Amino acid sequence: MELSDKQLAAEKAAEQVKDGMVLGIGSGSTVNYMLQKLAERIETEGIQIKGIPSSKKTEKLANELGISLTTFAEHHHIDLAIDGADEIDEHFQLAKGGGGSLVREKMVDSHADYFIVIAGADKLVKRLGAFPLPVEVIPFGWEVTEKKLQELGCQTTLRYQEEKPFVSDNGNYIIDCQFKSIEEPENVHKEIKALLGVVETGIFINMVNEVIISENGKIKVVKP
Amino acid sequence: MELSDKQLAAEKAAEQVKDGMVLGIGSGSTVNYMLQKLAERIETEGIQIKGIPSSKKTEKLANELGISLTTFAEHHHIDLAIDGADEIDEHFQLAKGGGGSLVREKMVDSHADYFIVIAGADKLVKRLGAFPLPVEVIPFGWEVTEKKLQELGCQTTLRYQEEKPFVSDNGNYIIDCQFKSIEEPENVHKEIKALLGVVETGIFINMVNEVIISENGKIKVVKP
Repeated sequence: MELSDKQLAAEKAAEQVKDGMVLGIGSGSTVNYMLQKLAERIETEGIQIKGIPSSKKTEKLANELGISLTTFAEHHHIDLAIDGADEIDEHFQLAKGGGGSLVREKMVDSHADYFIVIAGADKLVKRLGAFPLPVEVIPFGWEVTEKKLQELGCQTTLRYQEEKPFVSDNGNYIIDCQFKSIEEPENVHKEIKALLGVVETGIFINMVNEVIISENGKIKVVKP
Repeated sequence: MELSDKQLAAEKAAEQVKDGMVLGIGSGSTVNYMLQKLAERIETEGIQIKGIPSSKKTEKLANELGISLTTFAEHHHIDLAIDGADEIDEHFQLAKGGGGSLVREKMVDSHADYFIVIAGADKLVKRLGAFPLPVEVIPFGWEVTEKKLQELGCQTTLRYQEEKPFVSDNGNYIIDCQFKSIEEPENVHKEIKALLGVVETGIFINMVNEVIISENGKIKVVKP
């Protein structure tokens, strides 16, 4: 069976995990491939790692695959984080949160000594913003928070799942903000994060140490 | 029976509620007195108001007192908010959240056309900070969020209730930050709010329109 691009990038990243590491584990389909490869290595090579999962879905899959997990209560420090992204711009800034786990992903990715992003080449963009930017907000008063977001110049949509507002692992809502093009991601992040009612944005600034991209079966490793 | 200072201030504020208003209702013991007086006015004068409560406790008491409630879904606009405070500084900046409802209180108070703070004179301070500043954080990774807060120069304590971490109405934790003295409340708020994992701080900047203070039975109304 031929491997997909995201699978190739994921397996390449899994090879960088070393025995004894505390590993930050992102979320999403690309990360799921990474976990499968990692489980294989744990079984065949006998390496031991402890993972901090960035979503309940990742936690569930890791448990099914027999990958040991830990928490920030036990480890304030992460050696390596591996995660996907929805968009990766020319300056290695990311937009994430399409899967709804942006807060926990950012918590895990930003506390790692080294952060590897894995993706198919379709995630590379000149500028962030074509993909609607997810913003996690507290449910109470989300209607007024949404108005504040609109004042920043985006079109907003409260994310739904099965005809109800989508609820994040933190019990919050997500408002997807369509900016079309985000020229200054750091400023946009700061402006949004400062708003009352906003928990976090899907813009990940200056966190990436390495990007593993796969395109038509070819792997490319890029560093900022 | 002689009225306490906070009761006097509360009743004075309740008199400012007008027929037809959408009222933001704060939280805490002083606000509870206001609600009792308001319920009396609704019964005797027949005024009609709709309240948006800032905590589940306030919601419960308002329901018991027969005060009509509404939500931000129905009203994006609040005519008048009445709330207490833990500290009121010389420039009318507030520290709030001792009761754990800072996020909803800020949501309600900040969306009001007119915001009245009610308190006994013991809440007046030269500078905020003697009272530990409550900061609402998401439970996931609170241990690393706490470290970031400490780096801002405060001593931190995760708030407990009945031997478990206290959980806010939004499902979050509260870290009480002892700064001793907060010289620039607006900057301290901004620095803390910008941190990953932080939902909101208990510093309320430039929101107050009127303070009703009572001391030894005498009422004083002050405006910025």
